[in-house]
Amino acid sequence: MFGDNLERIVSAIEKNYEADEIFFTKPGRRFPSRRSIEWVIKELRRVMFPGYFGEEMLSPQTSPAYFIGETLMQIERVLRDQLILALAYTAPERDLAQGDPCDGVMPPGVCERASEVCNVFFDALPDVQRVLLTDVQALFEGDPAAGSKEEVIFTYPGLYAIYVHRIAHVLYEQGVPIIPRVMTELAHSDTGIDIGAGAQIGEYFFIDHGTGVVIGETTTIGNNVKIYQGVTLGALSTRGGQRLAGVKRHPTIEDNVTIYSNASVLGGETVIGEGSVIAGSTFVTFSVPPHSRVSVKEQEITVRRPDERD
Amino acid sequence: MFGDNLERIVSAIEKNYEADEIFFTKPGRRFPSRRSIEWVIKELRRVMFPGYFGEEMLSPQTSPAYFIGETLMQIERVLRDQLILALAYTAPERDLAQGDPCDGVMPPGVCERASEVCNVFFDALPDVQRVLLTDVQALFEGDPAAGSKEEVIFTYPGLYAIYVHRIAHVLYEQGVPIIPRVMTELAHSDTGIDIGAGAQIGEYFFIDHGTGVVIGETTTIGNNVKIYQGVTLGALSTRGGQRLAGVKRHPTIEDNVTIYSNASVLGGETVIGEGSVIAGSTFVTFSVPPHSRVSVKEQEITVRRPDERD
Amino acid sequence: MFGDNLERIVSAIEKNYEADEIFFTKPGRRFPSRRSIEWVIKELRRVMFPGYFGEEMLSPQTSPAYFIGETLMQIERVLRDQLILALAYTAPERDLAQGDPCDGVMPPGVCERASEVCNVFFDALPDVQRVLLTDVQALFEGDPAAGSKEEVIFTYPGLYAIYVHRIAHVLYEQGVPIIPRVMTELAHSDTGIDIGAGAQIGEYFFIDHGTGVVIGETTTIGNNVKIYQGVTLGALSTRGGQRLAGVKRHPTIEDNVTIYSNASVLGGETVIGEGSVIAGSTFVTFSVPPHSRVSVKEQEITVRRPDERD
Repeated sequence: MFGDNLERIVSAIEKNYEADEIFFTKPGRRFPSRRSIEWVIKELRRVMFPGYFGEEMLSPQTSPAYFIGETLMQIERVLRDQLILALAYTAPERDLAQGDPCDGVMPPGVCERASEVCNVFFDALPDVQRVLLTDVQALFEGDPAAGSKEEVIFTYPGLYAIYVHRIAHVLYEQGVPIIPRVMTELAHSDTGIDIGAGAQIGEYFFIDHGTGVVIGETTTIGNNVKIYQGVTLGALSTRGGQRLAGVKRHPTIEDNVTIYSNASVLGGETVIGEGSVIAGSTFVTFSVPPHSRVSVKEQEITVRRPDERD
Repeated sequence: MFGDNLERIVSAIEKNYEADEIFFTKPGRRFPSRRSIEWVIKELRRVMFPGYFGEEMLSPQTSPAYFIGETLMQIERVLRDQLILALAYTAPERDLAQGDPCDGVMPPGVCERASEVCNVFFDALPDVQRVLLTDVQALFEGDPAAGSKEEVIFTYPGLYAIYVHRIAHVLYEQGVPIIPRVMTELAHSDTGIDIGAGAQIGEYFFIDHGTGVVIGETTTIGNNVKIYQGVTLGALSTRGGQRLAGVKRHPTIEDNVTIYSNASVLGGETVIGEGSVIAGSTFVTFSVPPHSRVSVKEQEITVRRPDERD
Repeated sequence: MFGDNLERIVSAIEKNYEADEIFFTKPGRRFPSRRSIEWVIKELRRVMFPGYFGEEMLSPQTSPAYFIGETLMQIERVLRDQLILALAYTAPERDLAQGDPCDGVMPPGVCERASEVCNVFFDALPDVQRVLLTDVQALFEGDPAAGSKEEVIFTYPGLYAIYVHRIAHVLYEQGVPIIPRVMTELAHSDTGIDIGAGAQIGEYFFIDHGTGVVIGETTTIGNNVKIYQGVTLGALSTRGGQRLAGVKRHPTIEDNVTIYSNASVLGGETVIGEGSVIAGSTFVTFSVPPHSRVSVKEQEITVRRPDERD
């Protein structure tokens, strides 16, 4: 079909490969697998919310211990392999032995570090689950449209997004590269809710509808906070680009704050005091004291009747 | 790998299960299957829009009756099973016999009720289809970027969202738990358009782009209404939580209204009169009479030229 | 189950088919396959970013020419078939021979035209790839949360959306029906970013977070432009519907412009001059000269303290 063109096209693409340092400069290393990471998220959800997302038919008479143990061991095997790939990929060049890290020749320390991270991760799970059950409670009580707590677990995108965030955050805290972001982007794609894996989020967290929510990676959020669709907790400016990496550039939201739809709260020094209510579509770039009610004074709206001139 | 930790983790997770009333309190009951519900949505779409989403090669010379009948019978079998699961799950405890509802031991009345709902559902389909064809018409005529009505059917997220809503709404009206919400959340995840299954929506409905649209469950929308991305038809406040369940808390939009991108129209007593146009990014919490044109009086925008001080 | 109802329902649905000109009026023609088009997008991404999305383990010692050539040839076969279906579907009735276009009886010229389009498409790939590498650079440098260029390629929705747009745009420019829209809607569904296939977009393009972004089909965007979540580059009004098809109704954004979250820039005659910065949540319906800084003068926000009356 292509005739001579193919050769020319292939050669031009090869030249592009060579011109950029992102290709093939790390022989023997391989990217983690998005599919395996997604599998970890799905399987772990069965342990967190048994009976909702799998075939397990547990009942009070049967101890679920075997189901939990068996499933966690399977998850551990897959997650550990992905951690090795991610840690090896970003290990300094000089630490890299030759060969595929998965074929037994690992950069020194990568396997041990992957095991350490796994231990921390699985140790954190019971508390992550406990906190997720507070999120379910908050979503059910706060949403008049919620038919039951079961419906919340089974269908609410806000719960799925915070579930993925809470497990990604454990890995982020351990300094794991790539994988936390893969996890949060999977949730982002499914829900339209984009929570930076670094964000610190308290208990009884509530996101309703959720599409368009952005929570930046250096955000701090207290307990009992409610957020609606389209809310941005963001940076005032990111013109500094990479020079701002690690700097606190997203706001702090204290306990019991409600932020209605499409409001933007921006800036690393912005603190929304405890118990405040931020009205929809406001644009807040300054701190407010506890129990404030922030709203647009009056959006000057024109209502033109049909008998008025156009 | 885990060593002794595993036992401790498993035991802590077991304790979380026991502490919460949402787990294992309903022996013999099982959740509906998201996968089966998604299958119903996909297969039914082939009947509504034959030739677009399946392998069927119908032509004017061949009667499509066999294809319609065979496909509907398959859908009925799957949907009926899912209805039984959903109805059994939420049936009062005292009505539950022992055993798996799918193994023949049903709570009294569940099977009969599932059959009744199926009858109502399939009876409604021809009219649902007729109305969907008006939606196609509205999308094609209203969007200068639409290449053809076929392209609208095949690719427009707004059409997919309203299709799923219209079938979920039939089940919602019958008081079916869980399944309508599963359906609308599947569409929400695919399109970013979140339409509460309870919302009443007229013919010739038009949503363009759609990401971020939220239409609350007690919204009423007339005929020939156009809505763009990011529009919220929402509640003024949901601080009442579950106490507001069933209360009309979302607006009424009359016939021939256009609401441009990112506008919010809030409140159960808010009525947007027939033929009105709501400009983009407005925040409307009050009623307006028919044929109003609502816009922000003038957003006071500063344009600073480069020669001015920072 | 249905009894006599089924017959009545089938017959009513058949009547709906007959009443609308969109069904079965084109015997022997068939819609392109969404699945095949998605496959083309995924496979081509492996060529653009080798080692990130597939199993290929290339290294500097091994020439990637065989991998590139083999993969492109497979893509060509699939894409060509889909082009034939799309071109045949929209070919004028009189040009249609009988039979399935895929069974060898084609409307005259369709196969030749599909081959021409393929040639143009594959010829364009090396340059598309070169430009995508500038997008990676812009995303990495502009986002303090980006851990590495590899993480950008592997996880950023903004990069995926612009990748799909750049290949869809090549087909759009060739006048291919249906397929460009299928491509951009697949990306829209995954990312919440809706870029009309007709939009012209320069190098070093940056979209962060991205959910809710809408870029209309007649938009023109220069080099080094940065756009955040919820930004609309849209039309002032689309009440003209199909009469506006082809008219320039979306804005022009010159080089080095930054548009922060949830801003709307509307209108076909609106030009945002080079180097300008548009603040978040602004609503811009007029042109601004180069190096302008556009912000809301001061949104009059009320902050009510708890000791003040409600």
